[in-house]
Amino acid sequence: MLHKINLAEKLDLFSDQWSPKIIAELNGQQVKLVKFSGDFVWHSHELEDELFLVVRGRFRMDFRDRSEWVEAGEMIVVPKGVVHKPYADAEVEVMLFEPASTLNTGNTTGYRTVHQPEHI
Amino acid sequence: MLHKINLAEKLDLFSDQWSPKIIAELNGQQVKLVKFSGDFVWHSHELEDELFLVVRGRFRMDFRDRSEWVEAGEMIVVPKGVVHKPYADAEVEVMLFEPASTLNTGNTTGYRTVHQPEHI
Repeated sequence: MLHKINLAEKLDLFSDQWSPKIIAELNGQQVKLVKFSGDFVWHSHELEDELFLVVRGRFRMDFRDRSEWVEAGEMIVVPKGVVHKPYADAEVEVMLFEPASTLNTGNTTGYRTVHQPEHI
Repeated sequence: MLHKINLAEKLDLFSDQWSPKIIAELNGQQVKLVKFSGDFVWHSHELEDELFLVVRGRFRMDFRDRSEWVEAGEMIVVPKGVVHKPYADAEVEVMLFEPASTLNTGNTTGYRTVHQPEHI
């Protein structure tokens, strides 16, 4: 993949929420874009650390004992095993960086689970 | 690392060019920030794919047969084995995502090589 990827152009390609889209792969990791608002499900990932980088808007990462607001131009890394739940008060656009094996709902498979994220 | 990382705040912490700083680690990969202008050295990485995401400014990624300008909000993935050389006409700020083992000059160790990037 030797052509550049424009994040805004990729974000214009979809509007569904809580459904990460793969925009690049490298070293067994995937770069994904996701839009969401409202509350996700509490979950953790047994084996994968996850990086969330806010492209537009803001979201709150809830942990069991505290929360952290993450704004545009900020990122947060959630280590494997740590229970977390993203929440946004308005739609936020986020870049994810995580292993290709990562399931969005981690250990909590349910209606929010996206088993085969689309490549865009 | 459960606290968010603000890219602008991290970028304010250094001014030296061509010297990537580590701002996060996950899954054996590192997230780095680097500032540069002018020409780098031609090199490739035998084992590592590299991702370059422009935070501010722009740079040109030169390949042996073509070039690609990458602007703010855009990224490019350079697969392992592909010879490349970044160039910027004015200082650019770039986020790198690559394995922890990645040496900035790849197969071309020299005066530009940073053997132990600093954590900031």
